[in-house]
This record gives sequence, C-alpha cells and structure tokens, in this order.
Amino acid sequence: MLIRIFVTGGTFDKEYDELTGKLFFQDSHLPEMIRLGRANLKLEICTLMMIDSLETTDADREIIIEHCRNARESRIVITHGTDTMVETARALAANVRDKTIVLTGAMVPYKFGSSDGLFNLGSALAFVQTLPAGVYVAMNGRYFTADRVRKNRQTGMFEEETPTNGPSRSS
Amino acid sequence: MLIRIFVTGGTFDKEYDELTGKLFFQDSHLPEMIRLGRANLKLEICTLMMIDSLETTDADREIIIEHCRNARESRIVITHGTDTMVETARALAANVRDKTIVLTGAMVPYKFGSSDGLFNLGSALAFVQTLPAGVYVAMNGRYFTADRVRKNRQTGMFEEETPTNGPSRSS
Amino acid sequence: MLIRIFVTGGTFDKEYDELTGKLFFQDSHLPEMIRLGRANLKLEICTLMMIDSLETTDADREIIIEHCRNARESRIVITHGTDTMVETARALAANVRDKTIVLTGAMVPYKFGSSDGLFNLGSALAFVQTLPAGVYVAMNGRYFTADRVRKNRQTGMFEEETPTNGPSRSS
Amino acid sequence: MLIRIFVTGGTFDKEYDELTGKLFFQDSHLPEMIRLGRANLKLEICTLMMIDSLETTDADREIIIEHCRNARESRIVITHGTDTMVETARALAANVRDKTIVLTGAMVPYKFGSSDGLFNLGSALAFVQTLPAGVYVAMNGRYFTADRVRKNRQTGMFEEETPTNGPSRSS
Repeated sequence: MLIRIFVTGGTFDKEYDELTGKLFFQDSHLPEMIRLGRANLKLEICTLMMIDSLETTDADREIIIEHCRNARESRIVITHGTDTMVETARALAANVRDKTIVLTGAMVPYKFGSSDGLFNLGSALAFVQTLPAGVYVAMNGRYFTADRVRKNRQTGMFEEETPTNGPSRSS
Repeated sequence: MLIRIFVTGGTFDKEYDELTGKLFFQDSHLPEMIRLGRANLKLEICTLMMIDSLETTDADREIIIEHCRNARESRIVITHGTDTMVETARALAANVRDKTIVLTGAMVPYKFGSSDGLFNLGSALAFVQTLPAGVYVAMNGRYFTADRVRKNRQTGMFEEETPTNGPSRSS
Repeated sequence: MLIRIFVTGGTFDKEYDELTGKLFFQDSHLPEMIRLGRANLKLEICTLMMIDSLETTDADREIIIEHCRNARESRIVITHGTDTMVETARALAANVRDKTIVLTGAMVPYKFGSSDGLFNLGSALAFVQTLPAGVYVAMNGRYFTADRVRKNRQTGMFEEETPTNGPSRSS
Repeated sequence: MLIRIFVTGGTFDKEYDELTGKLFFQDSHLPEMIRLGRANLKLEICTLMMIDSLETTDADREIIIEHCRNARESRIVITHGTDTMVETARALAANVRDKTIVLTGAMVPYKFGSSDGLFNLGSALAFVQTLPAGVYVAMNGRYFTADRVRKNRQTGMFEEETPTNGPSRSS
C-alpha cells in the first residue's frame, strides 16, 4: 500500500534558533521520525511548504488541494499546524474525492522532549491505512471527520463538533 | 469507544538499573506515554505481568487469554515483548472471538531516546479503533493478522508470512 | 563546601507553551538537572527572577548584586540568559568582593533535547569549587573572567576579549 | 590549553542492541556530547578501548598509564566505567606524575534520556582545567583525589574515603 506524506510545516517541525532565541523552520523531521518508528511502509514524502498554520492562506490551501488531487496515491497523510488544521481539512473535503486523507500535527515541536509528534504520526499512518475514503483529522489518539471537528483553544484538544444546520448526516 | 490496555512487559517498559547496569522492569511507562501523546480516549490500563517475552510461558498466555475473554471492552491493546509476540497473538486468535485485539511493543526501551515505543503505541491505538474483530500485531507502522506474521530476527522487522497449507508449522 | 545557586531565568529555563506556541517561564529546571547529574553537593537554590536576559534592568542587577553580597556562601553559581550575561558579570565584579561567582546559562532550553544546559551546569559547579575569588562566565566548556569576555553574536560562542587600555569601553 | 580525552568505554558509551536486547559498545558518544555542550576547547579524543570496567585488566590499566605518560598534553580526561574507576585512578596516581588527570563516567548510558553523562563531562572538563597536577575522580558534581575515594555500591555515589594507615597526608 503506497502512502503519500505532504509536509506543510506546523509545530511538528519547529526548531529552536539558538542565535535569535526564536522558533523557526529548517528541514522536516519526518524522515527521522519515520526511521525512529522503524516504519516499514512504502512512503513518499514531499514538502509543500514550511509555515506556521496561522499564516496559511487560501493560496496555500489551493496548493495542498492540487497536490492531493494529483497524487497517484489514494492514501495521504498531511502534517499541518494545529491552529488551522480544521480549515484545511474542510477545504480538502470540499475539493478532493475518493481518497483517504489524514491530517495530523503536534502541540509541541518534535525536537522538544515532550512532543506528541511521534505518537500522532504513528496514529495518522495507521488511520490512513484503515479508514475509508474521506478527509480526517488525527489528533489526541482519535480521528475526526473533517466536518465534525474543532480545536478547543482552551484545552488544546481536538473534539467532535456537531454540525449545526444543513441536512442530517449519519456516521 | 472504550479501549482496554493490558501491559505484559517487554522491551517497551525496560528500565536501566544504575546500580547493577542491567535492564529491569519497574512500573509501566504506558500512563506517561499516553499523557505525552495527549491521548483523549477512554482507556483502562491494567498490568497483567512485567516480563521479558522470551520468558513468557503457556501459563502466562493463558492469563492473557482469560483477561481478553473477560474484558467488557471489545477493543484491546496488549503491550508485549517482540520476541514471542507472534506466539501470543496466535494463542489469542485461537481462543478469543468477536474482539479487536492489537499487540504492540518496542524494539528499544521507551526510556531510551531512540525508542519506537511512542510511535507504535500511537499506531496500535489507531488500529484498534478501526480494524474489524480479529487479532493483530501492530509494528513498523503496519498491522498484520496473527496467522500471517513473523518477526525477522535478522532485521528486527515484522513481516508478512504466507501460512503454509500443511497442518504443521514450526518456527 | 556550601554552594549557593541563584536562578534568574534565561534560555535555560524556557518552556514551550503548547496553547500559544510561545516560549515562556514556569518553574526552574535546576532541581531536576541537579538530580539528573546525581550531584552530591551542599546546594542552596534560590530563584531571584525568571526573565529573558534581554529584559534585565539595572534594578534587576542590583537585586542580584545584593543577594550575592548577602549570601553567607562564598561560592555562588548564577543561571542567567546569555544575551546580557557579560553585563551582569561586570556589574558583579565591580560590586562584590571575596567570593567566587560563576555565571552560566544555555543556548538552547533545557527541555529541548539538544540543550547544552546540563553540560554547562556541570562545568559551572566544578569551576565554582576550584577557582579563586572573582567573577566568571562559564560557557562552552571554558571559564572567562568578567572583564575579559564577550558573547560573539554571530557564532553564539563566548570568547576572550582583551580589555582596551583606555578608560572607555563600548560594546 | 590543550586537553586530551582518552575513551575507555564504561556505561557512558553503552548502546542498546535492538536485535539482542543487550547493552553493547559501538562508537563513543564523546564527539556528539562535546558538540552538544558547544565546547570550544582544544580537545584531542582518542579511544583506547571500549570495555565494561568490570572487565578491565591490569594489562588494560598498563595501556591507559602508558598513554597518559606519553601524551604531550598535561591535562587529561579519561572516560571510564564507574565500577573500577577508583582502581584505575590509583594505578595512574602511582605511575604518572606532573599531569592533571581526571577520570569520569556515568551511572546511566548517555543514550538513555536520564543519563548523568553530559553533566559529568562538563564537570570533568572544568576540573581538568583548574586542578593542580594529580589524579582525580570527577563524579556527582565533585572531585576526589585518587587515594581518597570509593564508590558506594549501595547508593551508587562516590564518596570520600579516609585512608586508614600509612603516613599522614594533607590536602
């Protein structure tokens, strides 16, 4: 089973710049994390952008959508900042069909000892192999469908959100 | 969705004893790992034993089987040493029905910086939520059904094994 | 031999706030680091402030000087941000006599896997036990006297600075 | 100031072999640790042996003594297993003059998250720069002269030992 991973940045990949004392992006840690997880999967990793998700624009989302559409793999993991992960998931759900797309990220940079990144990557790669076509967010050990998830900014946790109006939906 | 976790020891939970220079078992690191992964799941963790899986006896397997049978949860993750994980998976497959049971472990102790444990736990918790009833091994980012998996002792990787069609199987 | 440690903040003690994505100060990591180093020294740790050293004011330096003067211990380690560590060292050298005072810090927060903090703390605690009365900066495995050190902002390294023989010194 | 580092193995450098589940020696972690400490010292690192100090023989000690005698540097750090560090220190004290030699090690392998190795290396490199000629053990944040130290096997701590008989000695 071929899996495509698109890297878009986010907390996952933030590094500490010891000269400025600021967090910044360098190369993605995905390859190192996959080695650490001893993952034996057919993965293709491609970095689309390295940005803080608070700065993700519609143009960026268009790039992500295009790459998902054009990918020959039908199973795709996207690493993404958590702040606007839900927005990107919804844009993908509205624009890409017939693929299983799982977005994941981290609350703490991978390079920080206390990161949830490796755990989340393990769960995202598992969900993408087992869930039917659709767009999902994989965080906190769970998966959420793109239209029924929000990030709780008080707790930092992702949680289910019941869609308020529109036609009913069963799952 | 309720998930039961049974801890049985294995490399996962080995610690370094600084007085003797040997690896040993103390308490399980599962609660700490679940906190680190910021998992927001309804988990019940129960330690059945803390042993090296090379020392797992048939009596130990019987204990594991009994606990899986009696668990009210239909989704169960078992942390287990990798050396005889396949044997325990097969014993479970022969004796427990109608539950999704996922065995996982680690090649390197969690407390060692380079452990695959957190990645594997993330993937096991994801697989147990999405796979149909059956017994599985979750290692190397993949899942294997209990009757079609072996540990390759040269590479340390788990791989698919085509069941031979004769009745006997030696390994 | 009694050693006093004054904590003033700095990169050493910065934490990652997973809700805001910013670095911030909480409690000092000094006690944890001393445990990790299995240090068996008579230490008294006291937190004077928890600030980024770019924000250290003259009033803050006055507090540090007062505490060094009043300490009953004649050997003192101060953890301090690296950006203005030299300025604080010079203020101490001009105002405290007959004590061995060693300032140290870190280029990367202790909680980041790649921190130099533990190494620097080990060296500062060794220097404070062996150097004669005076004020020193302990960074990069070396010690520098307060009047002959500067931080090279290009490399992030501390280096010796020959004092110019005129009265004025600009930096 | 030139400093020579001789690597002899010990817990410091033990790695976890994920195929056998045993601890073993591969390359020394010293270069990596020195990079992490951002040490800016003139160091020459040389690996003499990679052994568990419980297995150190008189012939091994002879090799260490010869290398210390022949080293052009007058300041030498030796990484060594803690179990027989004191014995090697005494053999050196009896055979090498006019050099400052500091032995250090670790209670927990560097690759284990909870290692004291980086702290000890920082302190050993500081002590070797500041102590007069002699042979010392640097552990637990302190230094001990070779003839007045023992490892307490109950606590794992090094402590001063008053020499019982023989002529009096002042320090």
